Amino acid sequence: MTLYTAEKLVIITEKLICEKVCSIITKAGATGYTLTPAGGKGSRNKRSTADRATVVDDFSNVKIEVIVSDKAMAEAIVEEVAHKYFNNYSGIAYVEDVGILRQFKFNHAELNNSQ
Amino acid sequence: MTLYTAEKLVIITEKLICEKVCSIITKAGATGYTLTPAGGKGSRNKRSTADRATVVDDFSNVKIEVIVSDKAMAEAIVEEVAHKYFNNYSGIAYVEDVGILRQFKFNHAELNNSQ
Amino acid sequence: MTLYTAEKLVIITEKLICEKVCSIITKAGATGYTLTPAGGKGSRNKRSTADRATVVDDFSNVKIEVIVSDKAMAEAIVEEVAHKYFNNYSGIAYVEDVGILRQFKFNHAELNNSQ
Repeated sequence: MTLYTAEKLVIITEKLICEKVCSIITKAGATGYTLTPAGGKGSRNKRSTADRATVVDDFSNVKIEVIVSDKAMAEAIVEEVAHKYFNNYSGIAYVEDVGILRQFKFNHAELNNSQ
Repeated sequence: MTLYTAEKLVIITEKLICEKVCSIITKAGATGYTLTPAGGKGSRNKRSTADRATVVDDFSNVKIEVIVSDKAMAEAIVEEVAHKYFNNYSGIAYVEDVGILRQFKFNHAELNNSQ
Repeated sequence: MTLYTAEKLVIITEKLICEKVCSIITKAGATGYTLTPAGGKGSRNKRSTADRATVVDDFSNVKIEVIVSDKAMAEAIVEEVAHKYFNNYSGIAYVEDVGILRQFKFNHAELNNSQ
């Protein structure tokens, strides 16, 4: 089995803007993303609704993960998200190198079209 | 503290087949795995039960993470999972290099046996 | 956009000690962390409250993620957490290299102070 190099973009932000962020991701050309409930404490103390540092069952944030084919797409998404929302909403973003095991997930739509 | 190189295998798929996938993982020799609720939008539009792209509170998928000692075990697991289930169920899989901080977690069972 | 190299420390452990672990993280100088509900099966069989290997909806563990500037801080946190808790509670920890897209998140507090 061959591993294909790809990038995983992770954006952790407030649930409130999840749909808007996902819309940016989809418009950028990504074919999918994964959402996970998240809570925590951010550097601006905005990632928790309570004063206590750790409210384990308060998952008012969301972790959005997107596998993209290169860093350029990841950066384009983050640039737009950060520009539009990170002045007013809490958020953090980072990328990780991954080896993807089913490369066709990237371009399944294209594969379908070409069949 | 020494960091031991290992691989993290991530499989995001439908909750329905979670137990079957975890059974494959265990039989492959992994000593543990972590499950996280997940939602999202997949390239086959199967990773959400609704038509709307982002249904934040619909976590009908599961993210399965396994730390394995090498890529060969990760690939063996994914080969079997993909072969058995990814034609009929939505799924994506990738591996990441990690530095593990408690190496004995890999072979704790063996350590117990040898004591 | 420039990517800044950083480390992501991941600790998966029992919810019971989440606040104590997060307190160690904060005292070590990290400005934030992310919590995600987690379940699963550990090598010591302590990461599930039931005997069945996979109880998908039983998220009695927590995944704690921290972005830190270097491996030394990650290791200092894990050393203390492992020393204090991993003899009595189930836990695993690992680090991943990440490219951080908003570096100021690391030292936002300092930026605020210096303004």
